[in-house]
Amino acid sequence: MPDLGTVVRDIAEEMRLAPDRGTVASYIPQLAKVDASHFGICVIDADGQYHTGGDADVPFSIQSVSKVFTLTMALGTEGDQLWKRVGREPSGNAFNSIVQLERENGIPRNPFINAGAIVVSDVILGGHRPSEAIGAILTFVRDLADDETIIIDPAVAKSETATGYRNIALANYMRSFGNLRHEPELTLGVYFHQCAIAMTCRQLATATQFLAHDGLNPASGRRVVSTERARRIGALMLTCGHYDGSGDFAFHVGIPGKSGVGGGIIAVVPGKASIAVWSPGLNAVGNSQLGALALERLTRAMNWSVFAA
Amino acid sequence: MPDLGTVVRDIAEEMRLAPDRGTVASYIPQLAKVDASHFGICVIDADGQYHTGGDADVPFSIQSVSKVFTLTMALGTEGDQLWKRVGREPSGNAFNSIVQLERENGIPRNPFINAGAIVVSDVILGGHRPSEAIGAILTFVRDLADDETIIIDPAVAKSETATGYRNIALANYMRSFGNLRHEPELTLGVYFHQCAIAMTCRQLATATQFLAHDGLNPASGRRVVSTERARRIGALMLTCGHYDGSGDFAFHVGIPGKSGVGGGIIAVVPGKASIAVWSPGLNAVGNSQLGALALERLTRAMNWSVFAA
Amino acid sequence: MPDLGTVVRDIAEEMRLAPDRGTVASYIPQLAKVDASHFGICVIDADGQYHTGGDADVPFSIQSVSKVFTLTMALGTEGDQLWKRVGREPSGNAFNSIVQLERENGIPRNPFINAGAIVVSDVILGGHRPSEAIGAILTFVRDLADDETIIIDPAVAKSETATGYRNIALANYMRSFGNLRHEPELTLGVYFHQCAIAMTCRQLATATQFLAHDGLNPASGRRVVSTERARRIGALMLTCGHYDGSGDFAFHVGIPGKSGVGGGIIAVVPGKASIAVWSPGLNAVGNSQLGALALERLTRAMNWSVFAA
Amino acid sequence: MPDLGTVVRDIAEEMRLAPDRGTVASYIPQLAKVDASHFGICVIDADGQYHTGGDADVPFSIQSVSKVFTLTMALGTEGDQLWKRVGREPSGNAFNSIVQLERENGIPRNPFINAGAIVVSDVILGGHRPSEAIGAILTFVRDLADDETIIIDPAVAKSETATGYRNIALANYMRSFGNLRHEPELTLGVYFHQCAIAMTCRQLATATQFLAHDGLNPASGRRVVSTERARRIGALMLTCGHYDGSGDFAFHVGIPGKSGVGGGIIAVVPGKASIAVWSPGLNAVGNSQLGALALERLTRAMNWSVFAA
Repeated sequence: MPDLGTVVRDIAEEMRLAPDRGTVASYIPQLAKVDASHFGICVIDADGQYHTGGDADVPFSIQSVSKVFTLTMALGTEGDQLWKRVGREPSGNAFNSIVQLERENGIPRNPFINAGAIVVSDVILGGHRPSEAIGAILTFVRDLADDETIIIDPAVAKSETATGYRNIALANYMRSFGNLRHEPELTLGVYFHQCAIAMTCRQLATATQFLAHDGLNPASGRRVVSTERARRIGALMLTCGHYDGSGDFAFHVGIPGKSGVGGGIIAVVPGKASIAVWSPGLNAVGNSQLGALALERLTRAMNWSVFAA
Repeated sequence: MPDLGTVVRDIAEEMRLAPDRGTVASYIPQLAKVDASHFGICVIDADGQYHTGGDADVPFSIQSVSKVFTLTMALGTEGDQLWKRVGREPSGNAFNSIVQLERENGIPRNPFINAGAIVVSDVILGGHRPSEAIGAILTFVRDLADDETIIIDPAVAKSETATGYRNIALANYMRSFGNLRHEPELTLGVYFHQCAIAMTCRQLATATQFLAHDGLNPASGRRVVSTERARRIGALMLTCGHYDGSGDFAFHVGIPGKSGVGGGIIAVVPGKASIAVWSPGLNAVGNSQLGALALERLTRAMNWSVFAA
Repeated sequence: MPDLGTVVRDIAEEMRLAPDRGTVASYIPQLAKVDASHFGICVIDADGQYHTGGDADVPFSIQSVSKVFTLTMALGTEGDQLWKRVGREPSGNAFNSIVQLERENGIPRNPFINAGAIVVSDVILGGHRPSEAIGAILTFVRDLADDETIIIDPAVAKSETATGYRNIALANYMRSFGNLRHEPELTLGVYFHQCAIAMTCRQLATATQFLAHDGLNPASGRRVVSTERARRIGALMLTCGHYDGSGDFAFHVGIPGKSGVGGGIIAVVPGKASIAVWSPGLNAVGNSQLGALALERLTRAMNWSVFAA
Repeated sequence: MPDLGTVVRDIAEEMRLAPDRGTVASYIPQLAKVDASHFGICVIDADGQYHTGGDADVPFSIQSVSKVFTLTMALGTEGDQLWKRVGREPSGNAFNSIVQLERENGIPRNPFINAGAIVVSDVILGGHRPSEAIGAILTFVRDLADDETIIIDPAVAKSETATGYRNIALANYMRSFGNLRHEPELTLGVYFHQCAIAMTCRQLATATQFLAHDGLNPASGRRVVSTERARRIGALMLTCGHYDGSGDFAFHVGIPGKSGVGGGIIAVVPGKASIAVWSPGLNAVGNSQLGALALERLTRAMNWSVFAA
């Protein structure tokens, strides 16, 4: 077994020099400004040791990576009732597709596409004011990451709100089917702000640890979710975590992960590691190009796979 | 840890009595005749011990379960070239949907939906006569199962051929895009016969063992596929193995599996177990209702999950 | 040739007693309150004679019938440039479908489905304030109907705005493709108000006369649009005027028409008649059930059809 | 009113020289061989006078133009029962699309797309042998055209049969829903042969005359169909006769027509003219590019439109 620290540093160096870095997301002006040359990685092993490379301490917009944390919250308050309003199947469509909603009566296919995450935000909102719900999400993520300095980037949040026409369309469309309980602008207020949370790879890997350890935060010893729920969230990440590239990610990387259009990806090797990578350039289906490549290199070098005997 | 043998027998007893058994597939007359009261299960543990319950030795039509074996064969002859003609993504549609093919130029989404498996059959045909290709598939499956008595049920094969209008449509449709190399009736000759292979749970669990052991057949000590390939087939089974119920299967059962409309399901717990279950009644998305339930019971009782820490 | 006045009165009587009256639109609370027993008809013949029956002088919400008038206005300001932003093909989908927009990059199929009419409203808005655009539409319709008393029903307009989630979704979705020039709420302000115009059959038949006379208003002698444009609007009405029931309307009624979910339909027999009917109950595809039946009776009795030799 | 003969000759001359002639259909080898420089036109006026230009006497493959004649035949034997198996709505999709069939349970949208015409062929087959049905169609067309020399081009028929994978897919797909009464290859035998009928513009214009005269053949004085049926076929031609370009054809040309991928178009001006044009190059939606342009020129010059006052 190779040395994990060396592997992580080698990958960071390879990715620093990689010529083909994908395309930085342009649909939100604030994201389009991010420098494509960034690459960061943080791996926390089973002993709680941190192994980092590149820009592991540079904060970035976590975007859809937040969907894992809000799903965890919503399952906490709503339990399996949530699944009446969101499915658990891969979508077979782009992350912001609206076609499927028309065909399936406003029930999004899973909580990791935009429509599904908006329903999850609606659950978290739960009759409170958007600012309260946003505060609760931030508190939850800070707790998981054990870092009170994590903030929501106001420029990104404003940018999302001003240009989020597709998400506004998705929310109103679901509302027309009765699958949002609040006025769309309130629910979207929550959704846009959760996407604008800024975190580093180090913070993200920390926050994701509970999913690598059957729901237990190994640092604090605190249980975040039940064993069963942790595994089920892992199953959703594997089947649905990379939009219409989820099958390909499972095939090449072989572990549960969740990507965001900010270029971040979190992933877990159950019992072995919690991982966060970041590179802003995206591939054709909207996942971090170098992030996915780095994870493939990492799991191959370490012989990590949930499908390993 | 409970005793596996006891767990298997308890599950068999529970399933024998289960009132809601799903609906036996009616689209092929020969399948419609099968008695819905059947239930069989066979689990081979890491030590090669067999644990069986119910009708574990009653042969049934493996139908789409065969797609795992033919994919394995086609990857052997074609390697990664295969992925130019078949995708690796969950379909988001029914197993026999043709919609996706029109939108994606005749490239099926994955090798485990009908269209994808027909392309795989076309690869195996590879210029030979259909009878030769069918013979090669049967030989491969007999070798894996270490049982020369396995046969193709001629009545089922005839029934498939006579009523397989949708599959004929899929094949001709892909041929119109140039994604079949042979005349559709030749490729379909192979496909219909592979679906008509009859096997018992015991035979299927044996034949599936290599996928639970990183590509190595533990009984013979022979390598069937490389470690990487075995894991990748596992990834495809997890993301695509249950048609439009794959996400749900991953969520509830948590291990790679592949179902067939004959009511069979094969599944693997990497490093730990190779499993086959059978119950003819299907759920709404075409997977064995009691088969999936039995697997959920089994993995929960044994604390098996690829997402376990 | 039967006497037109007698035919009109006989139809009104038949429709007054018809048992199967369809279903009053429920998606806007204000429309749901309308009494399903209403039926009105007004036919203006080539000599300018009015023939009325039933509730020909009861105002109702014209809803999508307004799309004919706003299309006429938008073509006046934008000319054929309009067709870069809206197609001219039947949609093959429901009036409020969003599927087609995803597939065709935010370009609605025609100006008579909701999405297309919203683009038309966006053209009419043209940098003005919504109140100005709404005023201009009202003025245009009053001029056509030669009746200054026509108003916008404020309760209906408010109801549309408060519950128009699907239309909000459509507008935001098109905006995400850049096919709206204004913020969606401004364009929708125009759209929701035009739908809330209240008119009688008598007023509508009058306002529609120019389309029955190659663009010339026979009462005033004033040209509203060119001959070519009048015919082309007629072509659009015939192919797209009844949503996904347009083919059926052309088949059974045989003349250009445009329906609205308020239960109104306008139609023209070129050179011979301008017609408006109203009955609030709708059929399965959202067109006035008795309105369409009355028009079929009328054209059959009078031997009217654009397909007649 | 300009002189029709002069107009026709001028158009033929303009089209002879037109640089942009579209693309000759390549999906059938026999069609791909046709010389794109051809252009023919024949107009029969209300007095029965023939006005021709260009290659009006060169036979070509009528392809989907045949769908008008077979629909007429099938309505004769089946009457309105036919509409239980075929719709009357524009499709909103390409002529050979299969998507809609999946969504609408194997009922094609209208008799002028391939799937619909295959159902019509199945009706005509009606328990007879394919050769008998093909003979009956040929006899019907010869009678209409008053020309016993019309034949089916055997090379085209063979070419259709050998390469018609999409049509084979459509037929088998509908058969899987029970919407074909015969084995698909029998029905397709009829369909492929009707498409391979070879006719000249002169013959086609003659055969189409009954549709310009409320169902009466003016040459023979014989009634082909009832007045109502003739008009209804006209309505179907206007709304569905040019695949996904039907709206555009109605908008620009303004009269009922039916195109074929051989480059032919028939059209009628009710009470005034029966028209056939031919130019092999097709536009993006599969209709004759110069044929449609010639018809637009003709109707504009003659002030012909079913929407004219």
